[in-house]
Amino acid sequence: MARKSRKKKIGVSPGSLIYVGDKTDEPVKISVLTYDEHRVKETADVSVADILQHKDESAVTWINVSGIHNMEVIETLGKRFHLHPLLLEDIANTQHRAKIDDYEDYLFIVLKMIFSEPDSAPLQFEHICIVLGRGFLISFQEREGDVFTSVRERIRKGKGRIRKSGTGYLAYALMDMVIDHYFLVLEQLGDDIEILQQEALERPTRKTLAAIHAARHQVVYLRKSVWPVREMINSLLRGESELIEGYVLIYLQDVYDHVIQVIDTIETYRDLLAGTLDSYMSSVSQKMNETMKVLTVMATLFIPLTFFAGVYGMNFTYMPELEWQYGYPIFWIFTGVIFVSMVVWFKTRKWL
Amino acid sequence: MARKSRKKKIGVSPGSLIYVGDKTDEPVKISVLTYDEHRVKETADVSVADILQHKDESAVTWINVSGIHNMEVIETLGKRFHLHPLLLEDIANTQHRAKIDDYEDYLFIVLKMIFSEPDSAPLQFEHICIVLGRGFLISFQEREGDVFTSVRERIRKGKGRIRKSGTGYLAYALMDMVIDHYFLVLEQLGDDIEILQQEALERPTRKTLAAIHAARHQVVYLRKSVWPVREMINSLLRGESELIEGYVLIYLQDVYDHVIQVIDTIETYRDLLAGTLDSYMSSVSQKMNETMKVLTVMATLFIPLTFFAGVYGMNFTYMPELEWQYGYPIFWIFTGVIFVSMVVWFKTRKWL
Amino acid sequence: MARKSRKKKIGVSPGSLIYVGDKTDEPVKISVLTYDEHRVKETADVSVADILQHKDESAVTWINVSGIHNMEVIETLGKRFHLHPLLLEDIANTQHRAKIDDYEDYLFIVLKMIFSEPDSAPLQFEHICIVLGRGFLISFQEREGDVFTSVRERIRKGKGRIRKSGTGYLAYALMDMVIDHYFLVLEQLGDDIEILQQEALERPTRKTLAAIHAARHQVVYLRKSVWPVREMINSLLRGESELIEGYVLIYLQDVYDHVIQVIDTIETYRDLLAGTLDSYMSSVSQKMNETMKVLTVMATLFIPLTFFAGVYGMNFTYMPELEWQYGYPIFWIFTGVIFVSMVVWFKTRKWL
Amino acid sequence: MARKSRKKKIGVSPGSLIYVGDKTDEPVKISVLTYDEHRVKETADVSVADILQHKDESAVTWINVSGIHNMEVIETLGKRFHLHPLLLEDIANTQHRAKIDDYEDYLFIVLKMIFSEPDSAPLQFEHICIVLGRGFLISFQEREGDVFTSVRERIRKGKGRIRKSGTGYLAYALMDMVIDHYFLVLEQLGDDIEILQQEALERPTRKTLAAIHAARHQVVYLRKSVWPVREMINSLLRGESELIEGYVLIYLQDVYDHVIQVIDTIETYRDLLAGTLDSYMSSVSQKMNETMKVLTVMATLFIPLTFFAGVYGMNFTYMPELEWQYGYPIFWIFTGVIFVSMVVWFKTRKWL
Amino acid sequence: MARKSRKKKIGVSPGSLIYVGDKTDEPVKISVLTYDEHRVKETADVSVADILQHKDESAVTWINVSGIHNMEVIETLGKRFHLHPLLLEDIANTQHRAKIDDYEDYLFIVLKMIFSEPDSAPLQFEHICIVLGRGFLISFQEREGDVFTSVRERIRKGKGRIRKSGTGYLAYALMDMVIDHYFLVLEQLGDDIEILQQEALERPTRKTLAAIHAARHQVVYLRKSVWPVREMINSLLRGESELIEGYVLIYLQDVYDHVIQVIDTIETYRDLLAGTLDSYMSSVSQKMNETMKVLTVMATLFIPLTFFAGVYGMNFTYMPELEWQYGYPIFWIFTGVIFVSMVVWFKTRKWL
Repeated sequence: MARKSRKKKIGVSPGSLIYVGDKTDEPVKISVLTYDEHRVKETADVSVADILQHKDESAVTWINVSGIHNMEVIETLGKRFHLHPLLLEDIANTQHRAKIDDYEDYLFIVLKMIFSEPDSAPLQFEHICIVLGRGFLISFQEREGDVFTSVRERIRKGKGRIRKSGTGYLAYALMDMVIDHYFLVLEQLGDDIEILQQEALERPTRKTLAAIHAARHQVVYLRKSVWPVREMINSLLRGESELIEGYVLIYLQDVYDHVIQVIDTIETYRDLLAGTLDSYMSSVSQKMNETMKVLTVMATLFIPLTFFAGVYGMNFTYMPELEWQYGYPIFWIFTGVIFVSMVVWFKTRKWL
Repeated sequence: MARKSRKKKIGVSPGSLIYVGDKTDEPVKISVLTYDEHRVKETADVSVADILQHKDESAVTWINVSGIHNMEVIETLGKRFHLHPLLLEDIANTQHRAKIDDYEDYLFIVLKMIFSEPDSAPLQFEHICIVLGRGFLISFQEREGDVFTSVRERIRKGKGRIRKSGTGYLAYALMDMVIDHYFLVLEQLGDDIEILQQEALERPTRKTLAAIHAARHQVVYLRKSVWPVREMINSLLRGESELIEGYVLIYLQDVYDHVIQVIDTIETYRDLLAGTLDSYMSSVSQKMNETMKVLTVMATLFIPLTFFAGVYGMNFTYMPELEWQYGYPIFWIFTGVIFVSMVVWFKTRKWL
Repeated sequence: MARKSRKKKIGVSPGSLIYVGDKTDEPVKISVLTYDEHRVKETADVSVADILQHKDESAVTWINVSGIHNMEVIETLGKRFHLHPLLLEDIANTQHRAKIDDYEDYLFIVLKMIFSEPDSAPLQFEHICIVLGRGFLISFQEREGDVFTSVRERIRKGKGRIRKSGTGYLAYALMDMVIDHYFLVLEQLGDDIEILQQEALERPTRKTLAAIHAARHQVVYLRKSVWPVREMINSLLRGESELIEGYVLIYLQDVYDHVIQVIDTIETYRDLLAGTLDSYMSSVSQKMNETMKVLTVMATLFIPLTFFAGVYGMNFTYMPELEWQYGYPIFWIFTGVIFVSMVVWFKTRKWL
Repeated sequence: MARKSRKKKIGVSPGSLIYVGDKTDEPVKISVLTYDEHRVKETADVSVADILQHKDESAVTWINVSGIHNMEVIETLGKRFHLHPLLLEDIANTQHRAKIDDYEDYLFIVLKMIFSEPDSAPLQFEHICIVLGRGFLISFQEREGDVFTSVRERIRKGKGRIRKSGTGYLAYALMDMVIDHYFLVLEQLGDDIEILQQEALERPTRKTLAAIHAARHQVVYLRKSVWPVREMINSLLRGESELIEGYVLIYLQDVYDHVIQVIDTIETYRDLLAGTLDSYMSSVSQKMNETMKVLTVMATLFIPLTFFAGVYGMNFTYMPELEWQYGYPIFWIFTGVIFVSMVVWFKTRKWL
Repeated sequence: MARKSRKKKIGVSPGSLIYVGDKTDEPVKISVLTYDEHRVKETADVSVADILQHKDESAVTWINVSGIHNMEVIETLGKRFHLHPLLLEDIANTQHRAKIDDYEDYLFIVLKMIFSEPDSAPLQFEHICIVLGRGFLISFQEREGDVFTSVRERIRKGKGRIRKSGTGYLAYALMDMVIDHYFLVLEQLGDDIEILQQEALERPTRKTLAAIHAARHQVVYLRKSVWPVREMINSLLRGESELIEGYVLIYLQDVYDHVIQVIDTIETYRDLLAGTLDSYMSSVSQKMNETMKVLTVMATLFIPLTFFAGVYGMNFTYMPELEWQYGYPIFWIFTGVIFVSMVVWFKTRKWL
């Protein structure tokens, strides 16, 4: 869920570090990866106190922090790298929207990783922060996980140009990773919507309604998360920071194109879901109409006949029809004529 | 309620001070707080006539006025500090939207404090004005209350950088305070909306409808109040006034990010509530449909049978079936067949 | 009504004066008011031919024309003051939206006065034009009335700064007057909407529907009239015309704030009314649902019972149950059991 | 209808002349009107071959072409006046939206004439093109008709300033003509909408629905046609072409104001029609609700009574009530009590 | 369908070529067409290895590639012509939206061809890419087909100015081709919408609903595809690339006008379809209302009468009416009076 409590935070002085995400007891894990064109060095479970020892001035240093619920770790890291207190506050604030802040000596990038669970469950968001400095990059994740695994793999194997490039390209690679994952979420959602469209038109049930509702919910939160990413990359593209090397801009343009495609698709899904709900409503109305017709046809056919049967069940002493020899068959003929003419009338009204 | 009478105001010359808020008899309370890095001095219940004696030229002077319904007090204050009549008019006009006016010698900031009451009651708004001059800051509140208590506390205890900073930072701290409170309102609203979504889908009643309506009402007024705050802080951020020290801008940027987050969340709630109402309507339709089916099934099953029972209750003299030895069991078999075939037909239509 | 016939106008050459408002026989009344800091002179019922004699070069001359249906008067006035034919055409065109035209020697301002009548009757609009020249101001009203009375009063009594200021300030005072009146209309509308919200939720009738419709109608026309006022004052604020003295701009900014507040409130009302209609529809649906349940419960309870009563009213010769000694009490027990189990079933479905 | 086939056009080289409007056999009629301040000369039925002979270099030459379905005529004319092939293509393309193209030596203006037919029939559009060159103006109409008659009349009679002005003013006069006609269409539509509003609220029938639908259709097409006109005149107003004399700009500003008014009114109608449809739907719902109540009241009142009547029509041998002396009056009293208490219950629910 | 799987793509390094479109086994076909004013040379089934031999430096070389599923071919081609890896990736990514990228030495244009199938089937999209270099143009199509046939024909026959112009004009001709095809799709859709409007108003069935839904679907995807084309051509029109000759801009302006017309029409269809769905819903409601009336009339007419018939079928020993000589005719008169007065009451309510 994207809404979490901020109550505890109100009234404290700015720059105070207070974690607002889900509580967890898992230890914070810090790993360091240094590489240049010729060598790669990985160190896992680094202690935050020794962090500066692992920084390699002549290579790219990528520090990855899994877990942002331990305020001490973040504060120590902040002191070691001279990071602004407001920046640290934003790392701890897991609800912060995507943005980029330029602190001259380093860029601070906030992103959202999005995971979709099966069965239209609410989307899971993960708060990702990247600090991009001269020669080093620090990434923060809420949980240890496989988000950046493939980038790490590419560095290890030296695939593509990543080993030959600097921190700017690494930042690009991580962002590209995150945004590529959006397409997985969209795909899942797209499949769900297609099924919902069918159901809404053909067999609208309460479950369909709840599912449409859940999908709209997902789209609302997706939209809220992805729109700021667009602005963020756009301000990167203006190329004002020298921390992003010039040749990386064309790759960022590619990421930007992907974000635009994601937003386009979200807007399309919004439209489709609005249409699906309309279809649902229309289907239900149409079905009710058909039910009504059945009821009306049955009631209208038999109510008058029942009246006539009732009439000849009366016990008046003087009812001449009752004595007639052919009274009973005449009754059947009479009701038959009424019945048939009713049916004909319904046929002309296209109710049968 | 945000709507109050302006009738009394029409036709008077501009700059005339007329209070348009709720009437109240409480006395206006003025307190003065002067501080710099080394000392803090607080004076409560200052008389407006002596106000200038409490101003300390070598420190930051914060004058807080609780209660803006006494026009004399505001007018005297205005004269002492040479404030523009239109500014005083805007202090008294409790319905004024958030804005910032630059009068060169001082900045005039209007803000809205928002309180949410339990049970989807209408939101309460408080008109907050700040006059930021060289070395002094005057804040106006509608009621005495705890809005700025935590800032006062921080000054007393010398926490954070507030004691080392000037009036610009103080103005920032007050604004930050007000905007952080918005999150409390949003949180309350978010919880309400989540419950409403459940209710709308599962057991829609008239109470649900009224609650959805009340929540939409809240969102409409929230939106109206918060949008102008964004513009206001944005024009502060352009950094054109020298009354805001340069290093405060990065803090204001943080406030701006929070306002954007508030607006994002309001828009999200708007979308969710629209969706909730749609769900409510669809749920009611769906329920009606189910009710209709029960009625139709019952009526359709028994109406023809009742007709046949009526037929054999008729008193015609010559009705051969009545004399048959097995007439009665045949009747039951006949009606049983009709009944079962009807049930089968309903099964195929998925109505049972 | 805002729609009036333009048919008569098509095909004539531009600048031709044709009045498109309501026909009226009342005479056009012209009054002249000249004033400076020391003296005030009023002349009522001035003839249009002598108008220039009343102009006082050393003071502010305010000519007020009540009634714009007499084309001769407007034409003569236009010639005396060298006004452009297109300007005169716009005075006569009572449907013209608010605007400002800069003819270098004079500014031409079009405004809309709005009156609300009780009982959600359509709003009444009055076409107000102001020609602001060097040392003189001509105002045009559709009807004689109290629109500008309070400004005239302020001039007579010398209240505020109006007597010390020039024509620019007078123009401001008149515009402020007109826009302040909008709040009266909004207040009336706001009260109506609040009542409608209650009604829509609690006792929706056809009268409620018609009233919601009428209120939406009002909002649509209000919006259409007020939006252009915003643009108009905004272009005044750019301060490009030397006919508006520099110190008046801060007052115009205040008017601008008011217009923005009016527009905000109109948009809020739009949202509230949309919500009110939704509530109305939902209420009606909910009520229908409840009606349906009553019908379904009654029909479902008694239709099977009636069938069984019918069965034992049949006249078959051999119906063993009829001869049983306890047949009748057994019938009651049987129907009682059916009845009670039906009621229990309805209870579990929350229909009773 | 605004949609016509373009199938035949695809795949041909650009600049190929293919007429896409309604087929017609009427001959193309060309008339030439030359005038200056002192003289007027009219020639009807000019042959396209001799067209240049009629051009008068010392006066304004207005060539009017009625009928654009003959491609040869347009091609010849294009060659004589050195018009660009793409321009000729746009003359023949009757579906082209309003626009202005600046070909340096001449301006090319596309406009739409709109006619409304009685009884909410679809609007009729006429494609109008104007080529404005140095000393000459060529206008193209789809049909011979009275569109420009009044302008011609003004030239003949020398009314207004038209005879004293150049081709720019003539172009203005023609555009003004076309746009003034829009008000006729709006007026017709406004009357229709007012009637529909009444009907939707008071007696909603299927005819009302079809009429609302037709009116929305009209608004959609009106909007599509008029919006581009605004852009077109706006780019004329920028005054970049020397073919439009400077003093004509103030007149064009007037036309621009009219177009804005037309657009405002269209948007207002859009809003009103959306409201009208909502009213229609609400009215139908409300009516259905009332119908349902009648049915429910009748069924609920009589169904239990009918059951009791059925009970005492049963033929059990031992039914003690039947033998009671006052059984029959007791039955009536019993049913009377049920009936009255039901009625009271309905009264408390406000159903009667 | 526009949604296809990207799963396989996530985590690979940028510039990796992965085809995301429909799988196919058809061989890729490459044809080369070289031409200048005097000669034309066509070569079909060129091997990608020899491609540079066919390039004619003194003429325009148009290479057309049908089939983009073979990554080797695209990669080899990319190496021969020194194309950027990201560009090749975008060729293979069949879901990429329309765009233009300026790589200085060549322009890269992405377009969408749209095909509509009969019976409101989902639209078919084809990914078209154009690389426009100095003296050569490479076009990529998903399938071999007739898209560019008519352009090829024009080159062969030397119709129009195409043979006399360079690659810029050829690029224009291809884009014009693609966009002209959009009108075919719009036309088909327009016809469908017209039929749906009729159906929705006159005989709304479930099939109508599904068809409205399908048409909205088409409009959503059309919109998503065409909007970016507008931006794309707009950035071409800014004329910043020297690869587009200056005289081609006026032709591109014409294409731009067509795209605007397509977008206008799509927006119009959107509005019309929204209106059609509203009509459908209103029609269904209205029909239900009519059904309800029939039911209510029948039930209300006969239910009380049936009760009275039931009463006189009771077997009480003492029922004086039964013994009356004219009891039976009095019963008929009584029920007749009730029946007629009911009918009259329904007439006054306009239900009959």
